[in-house]
Amino acid sequence: MPRHLMPNSNTATLLVACPDKPGLVLALSQFIFENGGNIIDSDQYTDRDAGLFFMRLCWDLTHFKIPSDQIYKALLPLKEHNAISAHLFFSKHKPQVAVFASKSMHCLYDLLMEEKQGSLAGNIGLVVSNHKEAREVAQHFAVPFEYLPVSENNKASVEQTQKKLLAEHGIELIVLARYMQVLSPLFAEEWKNRIINIHHGFLPAFQGAKPYHQAHDRGVKIIGATAHYVTSELDQGPIIVQAVGPVTHRDSVPELIRKGRDLERRVLTGAVRLHLQHRIMVADARTIVFE
Amino acid sequence: MPRHLMPNSNTATLLVACPDKPGLVLALSQFIFENGGNIIDSDQYTDRDAGLFFMRLCWDLTHFKIPSDQIYKALLPLKEHNAISAHLFFSKHKPQVAVFASKSMHCLYDLLMEEKQGSLAGNIGLVVSNHKEAREVAQHFAVPFEYLPVSENNKASVEQTQKKLLAEHGIELIVLARYMQVLSPLFAEEWKNRIINIHHGFLPAFQGAKPYHQAHDRGVKIIGATAHYVTSELDQGPIIVQAVGPVTHRDSVPELIRKGRDLERRVLTGAVRLHLQHRIMVADARTIVFE
Amino acid sequence: MPRHLMPNSNTATLLVACPDKPGLVLALSQFIFENGGNIIDSDQYTDRDAGLFFMRLCWDLTHFKIPSDQIYKALLPLKEHNAISAHLFFSKHKPQVAVFASKSMHCLYDLLMEEKQGSLAGNIGLVVSNHKEAREVAQHFAVPFEYLPVSENNKASVEQTQKKLLAEHGIELIVLARYMQVLSPLFAEEWKNRIINIHHGFLPAFQGAKPYHQAHDRGVKIIGATAHYVTSELDQGPIIVQAVGPVTHRDSVPELIRKGRDLERRVLTGAVRLHLQHRIMVADARTIVFE
Amino acid sequence: MPRHLMPNSNTATLLVACPDKPGLVLALSQFIFENGGNIIDSDQYTDRDAGLFFMRLCWDLTHFKIPSDQIYKALLPLKEHNAISAHLFFSKHKPQVAVFASKSMHCLYDLLMEEKQGSLAGNIGLVVSNHKEAREVAQHFAVPFEYLPVSENNKASVEQTQKKLLAEHGIELIVLARYMQVLSPLFAEEWKNRIINIHHGFLPAFQGAKPYHQAHDRGVKIIGATAHYVTSELDQGPIIVQAVGPVTHRDSVPELIRKGRDLERRVLTGAVRLHLQHRIMVADARTIVFE
Repeated sequence: MPRHLMPNSNTATLLVACPDKPGLVLALSQFIFENGGNIIDSDQYTDRDAGLFFMRLCWDLTHFKIPSDQIYKALLPLKEHNAISAHLFFSKHKPQVAVFASKSMHCLYDLLMEEKQGSLAGNIGLVVSNHKEAREVAQHFAVPFEYLPVSENNKASVEQTQKKLLAEHGIELIVLARYMQVLSPLFAEEWKNRIINIHHGFLPAFQGAKPYHQAHDRGVKIIGATAHYVTSELDQGPIIVQAVGPVTHRDSVPELIRKGRDLERRVLTGAVRLHLQHRIMVADARTIVFE
Repeated sequence: MPRHLMPNSNTATLLVACPDKPGLVLALSQFIFENGGNIIDSDQYTDRDAGLFFMRLCWDLTHFKIPSDQIYKALLPLKEHNAISAHLFFSKHKPQVAVFASKSMHCLYDLLMEEKQGSLAGNIGLVVSNHKEAREVAQHFAVPFEYLPVSENNKASVEQTQKKLLAEHGIELIVLARYMQVLSPLFAEEWKNRIINIHHGFLPAFQGAKPYHQAHDRGVKIIGATAHYVTSELDQGPIIVQAVGPVTHRDSVPELIRKGRDLERRVLTGAVRLHLQHRIMVADARTIVFE
Repeated sequence: MPRHLMPNSNTATLLVACPDKPGLVLALSQFIFENGGNIIDSDQYTDRDAGLFFMRLCWDLTHFKIPSDQIYKALLPLKEHNAISAHLFFSKHKPQVAVFASKSMHCLYDLLMEEKQGSLAGNIGLVVSNHKEAREVAQHFAVPFEYLPVSENNKASVEQTQKKLLAEHGIELIVLARYMQVLSPLFAEEWKNRIINIHHGFLPAFQGAKPYHQAHDRGVKIIGATAHYVTSELDQGPIIVQAVGPVTHRDSVPELIRKGRDLERRVLTGAVRLHLQHRIMVADARTIVFE
Repeated sequence: MPRHLMPNSNTATLLVACPDKPGLVLALSQFIFENGGNIIDSDQYTDRDAGLFFMRLCWDLTHFKIPSDQIYKALLPLKEHNAISAHLFFSKHKPQVAVFASKSMHCLYDLLMEEKQGSLAGNIGLVVSNHKEAREVAQHFAVPFEYLPVSENNKASVEQTQKKLLAEHGIELIVLARYMQVLSPLFAEEWKNRIINIHHGFLPAFQGAKPYHQAHDRGVKIIGATAHYVTSELDQGPIIVQAVGPVTHRDSVPELIRKGRDLERRVLTGAVRLHLQHRIMVADARTIVFE
């Protein structure tokens, strides 16, 4: 899990991926130092099999000479010279988050509580649900709510409405908090690496529907939950966080569901926090998580 | 953690402690069988060092011949003959619970959410707080709320008011959900084994105030939380549930506090559920937990 | 994990499974009490969905009136009257265990160490391997060793030799301690619920070969190990114990293998201990573990 | 836990601690790049409260222009200019390790097994014990053994002999693998941050003798083990690794001891591996562990 809670900090965070070669750390730290920045957190990983270099750099902007809106442009020569894929974030900008929920409220509550505590590094700006139960919860936390019931026939039009709402609220991350509807592959593709789902099973075991029933039938002694980015293939996206807990033969399916609630919310909120702190990079089917 | 969620069951649960001797299981099961009961859950533990016998028996009352309100009396000869300390509970009776809270809301939310899910085997009938913040939370879950601010000088009178409220609401269990006030020894004694507190540290390490600061200074690699019955001695009561989580050198005190929130609510709600399912027996300084 | 280490105890342990009905606990405890036994440990579980009753009863034989070799016969009327499937064990009899190993020694070492500590409730009387590496380990712990190399063509004859050895050494439990050979369905059937295997993955995920490679490719954040009874279908037998540990993107396959070693030995030794303490019952595809 | 197993690598690892200021990452990466090195692993931590900078840098020496034995000298200007405390290590040099043991063999076995697997990044060159039991274990793994019985009166002379042996075997790290003798403060001081001890309790709880008895009396629901550097004050040294496991009321002291064995060896071997991979820095009473 992440580390620093620096509520009033003014920092930039740069995520870098590129082919490995000597001098990358130097080039990046030179750019920061020569423009007046002080690195306060850095983590780096080289995938030696794939020959790839990954780095997360976080620096103080207090005395940085380049205005924030021009830093990305200033990085371009460095970026091009090293074939870098770069993402730049600023602590002053709190990303807007939309939570999609259905009937189970535990993940929604947890996200809203942690956001209220200021621990999420983002703002939940919208709650969308195909059930009315979530309205009261959203209102209790003073977050806008939209009720969009889904049926066999209206899926496409609901997605259009959702996209409109996401644009209106300036949403940058969608969290599926036990949202029991499958998004269209197109939607998933458009929001690639920006939709986090909680699967109530220990992926890749127990994919698909009713994972707790599957777990009960197989007689496992441990259950789990998995937060992952959504891709067009169900339950196949890159895994961000997993957690598990012990169960016994005495645990009926309803009891597994109860125990699972605790795992699900922990895992989902943890994954959302990591994303909003810009600690996750996706490399093919896997995530690199700089905790 | 406990097991069966049997929402509409009609069962009796008997907790028995006595000096060990042959025939105890027989005597108890005979009483149940001969009166038309069917045992659906039983667990037993013999402390061979102390020579003590502990048993938890749960039986179906559907065809039981003795009316519920006369079962305890019917047990008396058995009880006296074997020097048994016995406690009898009925699934039809949902105990009323009072939650005492201060400013931290995570444990209160968790208890109210799980109660709403029907997983607690009890009803939260009262929330008491020395801060106004909890009012909205209690109202959101439609639970009566009492605001009782505590100062140096009014402690005794506040306890009198609390006792009055507890009586009015028929409270059988008090849960201190990060309630930052120490109860008087007399109060603790009156409610012996019926007050559950959450200590935000891994007891017996880090007793007293600011356990996360203590943990940070000592440089531990794991933090914990402990639910225990309250006794007149601070942080010395019998431990019910503990949980822990990993931390690193990167975790500042605020980050430890954030990570601790998750441990605290899990541990406290778990302990309350075990208590309300009548799975806990206290033997001197230790608990026997029939999970 | 199990509980009592009672090195010099003289106890009987009875495992009972039958259709649920009132009076079963009574009938069993009556049999024990009326013959002079004192129950020192009992645990019971009713599968209410399946209408099945499971019980483990352990009693002191010091003053028991029926000689051990006649207890099973004395139980027959009770057994027949209630359609009970019963297994009876005596603490005086230490089961003989055979360990089958290949090249990885960590599970073998762990079993031999724990047996030497007296914590296993059984004796390892034979080590069989298709590689010579295990010989020195077996000799170090003074356990007979048999080298039986396996090739494509000699599988059937090796199994014949194994069966002969098992008979000669009076083996009652076979432990596959990272033994990289698949036993024939017939062999598995003959030794049903008496062969424990360790699978180096979190079943049902990552079945079959190279589970750590599979885990790495899927990018999981937790790896696991599973001890299960062997059935004629690979990796499908009833699960006894599972354990997991955290991994990150930094863990290469060799590192996963290293981390897995610790999980594997813990899980396997734990499962063997539970079996030898007669704490496991098998109900269809699942185990009931009376810890 | 650590990550890369790079058996044939030729790398240098630099551990750096100094007051924080801008340009440190730049200066260090410049030194490496300009001399032909390629950084393959780097991790950095800034303690913002204390204003301290910590970094671990690991680079490939294949094309490095400075001979290994002159690198430290070449770093001196950089070191002095930034008030850096630096430690430099080479993968070509496998540190020699001495293990001190008494009667419990599980930690000793685990260290020797992992060393044999090549996972320790060091060589166990000496086993010292005040009991003869360890001789056979050391011999089984072909490691020199010294039997040095300790009594009330010979402590000082035994330490002299130990020092002589440590020098003769070129030992760089001492591991107290359940060694039941307290080293003198002077010895501890001389080997500061180079002696790792395993305490069989969850420090700071249960310091001193018989921690499992203490844990049993307090009725904890979780037990732990702690690996730490030895200082002149008993059980007060900087904590490196901790692990915990669940226990219940059923666990007698011997059972706690058994369960603890598994925790102890895991924790101790893990701490030794981290030390030998040069992943640990000590800052006052705490460790920084670059996993």
